[in-house]
Amino acid sequence: MEALVIHAPGDLRVEQYETAELGPDQLQVRVRCGGICGSDLHYYQHGGFGTVRIKEPMVLGHEVAGMIEAVGAQVTKYKPGDRIAISPSRPCGLCKYCQEGLQNHCLDMRYYGSAMRTPHVQGAFRQQIVVEQHQAHLLADSVSDGEGSMAEPFAVALHAVRRAGPLLGKRVLVTGCGPIGALAIIAARRAGATHIVGTDVGAHTLGKALKVGADEVVNVAEDPQGLARFTADKGSFDVLFEASGNARALVGAFDALRPRGIIVQMGLGGEFTLPINTIVAKEFDLRGTFRFHEEFAVAVELLNKGLVDVKPLISATLSYRDSARAFALAADRSQAMKVILNFD
Amino acid sequence: MEALVIHAPGDLRVEQYETAELGPDQLQVRVRCGGICGSDLHYYQHGGFGTVRIKEPMVLGHEVAGMIEAVGAQVTKYKPGDRIAISPSRPCGLCKYCQEGLQNHCLDMRYYGSAMRTPHVQGAFRQQIVVEQHQAHLLADSVSDGEGSMAEPFAVALHAVRRAGPLLGKRVLVTGCGPIGALAIIAARRAGATHIVGTDVGAHTLGKALKVGADEVVNVAEDPQGLARFTADKGSFDVLFEASGNARALVGAFDALRPRGIIVQMGLGGEFTLPINTIVAKEFDLRGTFRFHEEFAVAVELLNKGLVDVKPLISATLSYRDSARAFALAADRSQAMKVILNFD
Amino acid sequence: MEALVIHAPGDLRVEQYETAELGPDQLQVRVRCGGICGSDLHYYQHGGFGTVRIKEPMVLGHEVAGMIEAVGAQVTKYKPGDRIAISPSRPCGLCKYCQEGLQNHCLDMRYYGSAMRTPHVQGAFRQQIVVEQHQAHLLADSVSDGEGSMAEPFAVALHAVRRAGPLLGKRVLVTGCGPIGALAIIAARRAGATHIVGTDVGAHTLGKALKVGADEVVNVAEDPQGLARFTADKGSFDVLFEASGNARALVGAFDALRPRGIIVQMGLGGEFTLPINTIVAKEFDLRGTFRFHEEFAVAVELLNKGLVDVKPLISATLSYRDSARAFALAADRSQAMKVILNFD
Amino acid sequence: MEALVIHAPGDLRVEQYETAELGPDQLQVRVRCGGICGSDLHYYQHGGFGTVRIKEPMVLGHEVAGMIEAVGAQVTKYKPGDRIAISPSRPCGLCKYCQEGLQNHCLDMRYYGSAMRTPHVQGAFRQQIVVEQHQAHLLADSVSDGEGSMAEPFAVALHAVRRAGPLLGKRVLVTGCGPIGALAIIAARRAGATHIVGTDVGAHTLGKALKVGADEVVNVAEDPQGLARFTADKGSFDVLFEASGNARALVGAFDALRPRGIIVQMGLGGEFTLPINTIVAKEFDLRGTFRFHEEFAVAVELLNKGLVDVKPLISATLSYRDSARAFALAADRSQAMKVILNFD
Repeated sequence: MEALVIHAPGDLRVEQYETAELGPDQLQVRVRCGGICGSDLHYYQHGGFGTVRIKEPMVLGHEVAGMIEAVGAQVTKYKPGDRIAISPSRPCGLCKYCQEGLQNHCLDMRYYGSAMRTPHVQGAFRQQIVVEQHQAHLLADSVSDGEGSMAEPFAVALHAVRRAGPLLGKRVLVTGCGPIGALAIIAARRAGATHIVGTDVGAHTLGKALKVGADEVVNVAEDPQGLARFTADKGSFDVLFEASGNARALVGAFDALRPRGIIVQMGLGGEFTLPINTIVAKEFDLRGTFRFHEEFAVAVELLNKGLVDVKPLISATLSYRDSARAFALAADRSQAMKVILNFD
Repeated sequence: MEALVIHAPGDLRVEQYETAELGPDQLQVRVRCGGICGSDLHYYQHGGFGTVRIKEPMVLGHEVAGMIEAVGAQVTKYKPGDRIAISPSRPCGLCKYCQEGLQNHCLDMRYYGSAMRTPHVQGAFRQQIVVEQHQAHLLADSVSDGEGSMAEPFAVALHAVRRAGPLLGKRVLVTGCGPIGALAIIAARRAGATHIVGTDVGAHTLGKALKVGADEVVNVAEDPQGLARFTADKGSFDVLFEASGNARALVGAFDALRPRGIIVQMGLGGEFTLPINTIVAKEFDLRGTFRFHEEFAVAVELLNKGLVDVKPLISATLSYRDSARAFALAADRSQAMKVILNFD
Repeated sequence: MEALVIHAPGDLRVEQYETAELGPDQLQVRVRCGGICGSDLHYYQHGGFGTVRIKEPMVLGHEVAGMIEAVGAQVTKYKPGDRIAISPSRPCGLCKYCQEGLQNHCLDMRYYGSAMRTPHVQGAFRQQIVVEQHQAHLLADSVSDGEGSMAEPFAVALHAVRRAGPLLGKRVLVTGCGPIGALAIIAARRAGATHIVGTDVGAHTLGKALKVGADEVVNVAEDPQGLARFTADKGSFDVLFEASGNARALVGAFDALRPRGIIVQMGLGGEFTLPINTIVAKEFDLRGTFRFHEEFAVAVELLNKGLVDVKPLISATLSYRDSARAFALAADRSQAMKVILNFD
Repeated sequence: MEALVIHAPGDLRVEQYETAELGPDQLQVRVRCGGICGSDLHYYQHGGFGTVRIKEPMVLGHEVAGMIEAVGAQVTKYKPGDRIAISPSRPCGLCKYCQEGLQNHCLDMRYYGSAMRTPHVQGAFRQQIVVEQHQAHLLADSVSDGEGSMAEPFAVALHAVRRAGPLLGKRVLVTGCGPIGALAIIAARRAGATHIVGTDVGAHTLGKALKVGADEVVNVAEDPQGLARFTADKGSFDVLFEASGNARALVGAFDALRPRGIIVQMGLGGEFTLPINTIVAKEFDLRGTFRFHEEFAVAVELLNKGLVDVKPLISATLSYRDSARAFALAADRSQAMKVILNFD
């Protein structure tokens, strides 16, 4: 079977890749769809991000869905033909963080398609893969493979929303409305936010933000003072989801965020220079959010029940053989949100 | 103008009732719709509940919507013709609880149509009323007067949901699916609950529960062991909203509620005999919930934006002159959920 | 080596008991002190409590400290001669609750000296025992074996205090000042409570409550209205630790507990009849508390650093050979708080 | 009567200052002691900080204690001769934040000795002052005037500790052990922290940190890698109180802070450049803390009951007439922590 293997920046190859042997508690899956994530793009464009760099060939990809082809001897819960979303997260279950229920901070995490550790953890952009049962989540017939592959980024957004605490009745600002920001809008709405404003620098992105539920959007490239109308009485937003990874977006929202406002920082971005006195005096609460754990199951359940709709975010579905075009499109925020690879 | 005045159990009269003079910061409102609440029924049927009894004639009613007829000299935010839902809650703003943001525990609360204090606080089942500006919440054109009158009980449900903490991705059980239980289902769904099960003893009620969003219902009159399928692994529900006011419903849910399960007790009901050892050993968290404060505004905003739909719960709208029939219908859970009085 | 084995109510025997073989990751411990707990008393007096009954001979005891005699081949963290408190709690680490950090709700818990499951889990009232490394907690030289054996009940109190949320600056009521109530006073003070009132029906107990830090005590046998002075403005206590297991104590505190008051129910006690309307209207938050997990280490650390003093609660230390007298004394709240068995 | 009035950087004058007339609900107080705070120093040295600058003469000071000389006609709770700590905080009570219990974010706050608004709010470094009853907190005989004047900065520390959530059993790092950091150590210990490590660049300061309860200190000037021993397993501190106002201190603690670690930023300091990816990936929770509200009463109660000891932090008490020397000493961290002015 074939896989998409990154060798160096720009050097992404379709290669033969052997599927592991099926253990008694495992599932063999025919991968059908895989979404291109920002980290895949970073490996492709720059060979990594920060201190995380590819040091050996690595299969990319961690947002995938497929169909079970075979099940191990001990498996009773699944059967061939079942369609599943696959969680890329495999915490050890034994370390102190796993034992505290903080599996996303596992000391021995193996997360698909990540160069954080060496040897790298091989990813899931391949035609066939063997997974653990706990990674499998059944998809309803009403959910397409492409939507199923979005369970992973949506789980990231759900985790971010949970980090914010209860949102019922809250006013929410989302800075950066790319795929993750847009999914945060969907998740925040599902969690009961009453008013959601999105900001970005691109018209295509903001159009999608409106489509998935934002009440208003502000193009901060065209209207740098667009948040000024939310600054009365020390600010009106209860919660800010910062999904741009840009310090200016974060700091630019401070005046519109009320005292005790909660900031959930989703975007990565190197060094941020922040006016610490504002954080102190307004008693902001700036929280990092990283991956997810139980939220993967929640994501699939919300998709299965039609309680959320991520379809507007799927911009295109291309064959994995056409990866150069797919990655170029995924990188172009003026045209695309999520680009899905088809592994048939 | 006329009002509905309770004099004694069963003795509810249409009487002339003078409207207070309009102060400079107040609004004069033509009341259009008023929902009959369980407490109205208790005053009507029994003269009160517990130690709260009518000791003097009292206008009933606290779930009302109407149109502004005149505004005080200082008012700029509202104008005649504006349609509003009216919050019946008037906390003092100065006592220790108000200063802690717990206005629903105000030491000097004046809540419409309540005999908790003497002289009683006169209610809002009348054709005309003068209110404070902070009681007024603008209704969108898309929201009917009847729906507007449901802002109050929906605010009660929203407050109950907030008492439960975040519900995103949670499994929720609602025992008792009368108006308050059904509104709790709507609020829990809006707050992100992924699976909601309702129980009741009546088919009409359970049908409404399904209509407003329950995933499953159990008729515990016909199927007393209907919750048994949720008891594996020490129970599967994260949160229970107890809206029946019946101790058996509460205790009957204990096995289906997981350790650390949160119980929000909405229903009133005298003495409850509870197996305290189960509460201790499963570390349940049993929380009372009482009225609301900021949730009234949230209720109206959710209605205005179409983010919730309470219409299935409006069973009938009758003239206030036909109060005997209206109250009889409101008391009949086999036919009715919310009955609305029309004050035109 | 010898152990204290319960065969039937009142039939507690000193018997020869074989020590398990020492595994490579285990510790062999010479038990020195063991505290008699309420559950030990229940097995001794009544053969159990509620549905938990002894169905086969069982070694009692779960509050023990001792000295390491030998360590397994893989053990590097401990050495013979180390003095330790032994946690009686052995959760499975793998079930859903363990993976959520709720080890006290483990689906496969093996807790020393408990008849909750059959075969029963044998206890630690014996001269020698083999334990897992995670059960061992080093005692400082300044901490006696008897104090070390109190790490377990103190961990229970610490867990209860954690269930209450932050206590810094809070006003706390403790109903029932037996060993668990008194330890709750110590823990609440350590957590920053500013004013602590204890109630009980016994003078000896209340004297101990004052000794360990209560600001005031009320003998509700002699002064049934003794809490009346705390009822102004809807009540003045922020938190109630109910450690009597008596419904009257719980309900009797309701008027003295402020709206949104938190009740941590520590005491077991069968059926409690509660005025549910008060819980609802004052929005109480009644939380069960059950055993502990990480609090055992906290208990030992606080003892080791002298940040708490449990010595006033040790009423007597008797030989395990004198168990009849020890258990009689432990049951007599007019003379004793904690009675310690010496296993030398 | 005389007051200490700042006119310009370095220009601090003793001037005659008229005391306001005593209203019926007010207290006239003979000020006895006033602590010099960092903000007083900033006004004295630089004329302010950030955008807050003195634009007109202003009495300095907001940490004061004194004796009541006269009470208004309506006052029954206090009498002449009562010794009190005076809270400098006068929120409006009516704005949206006051009504949420967030009085420290009052939209119309009048805080003694602050140039945040113009006209400035005159301070309390004067011999006589008229205050509102709610500002007065009775001091026990065992608490000196100097200690009483420390209620204010201690309230700041208590508020910071509350912002961190429960500390019982937690491991705490305090970076910057000047007066505020040292008070945070006292507050964290009182709230149940089990292990407290302080860092600073000065030996005098670190000596005081040990004296008030730190378990260990690290001089990061002499031992820049001194926190390295706390970095295993992704870091060992649960909570960081950052009291230095120095970005390097904050960032330098990141590796020693465990995932989900809580950072309470107390120190002010302009622009902080932070590695945002670490905050994201470790899911830190960086919370500002600003002043206090109900914690002032808690501070006085803890002092009155002897549950905390702030005396080691009082470095010297000088006459207000000797303000130049007092301010110079207060600015010299190699010799002084808190310097108290005597207004007799």
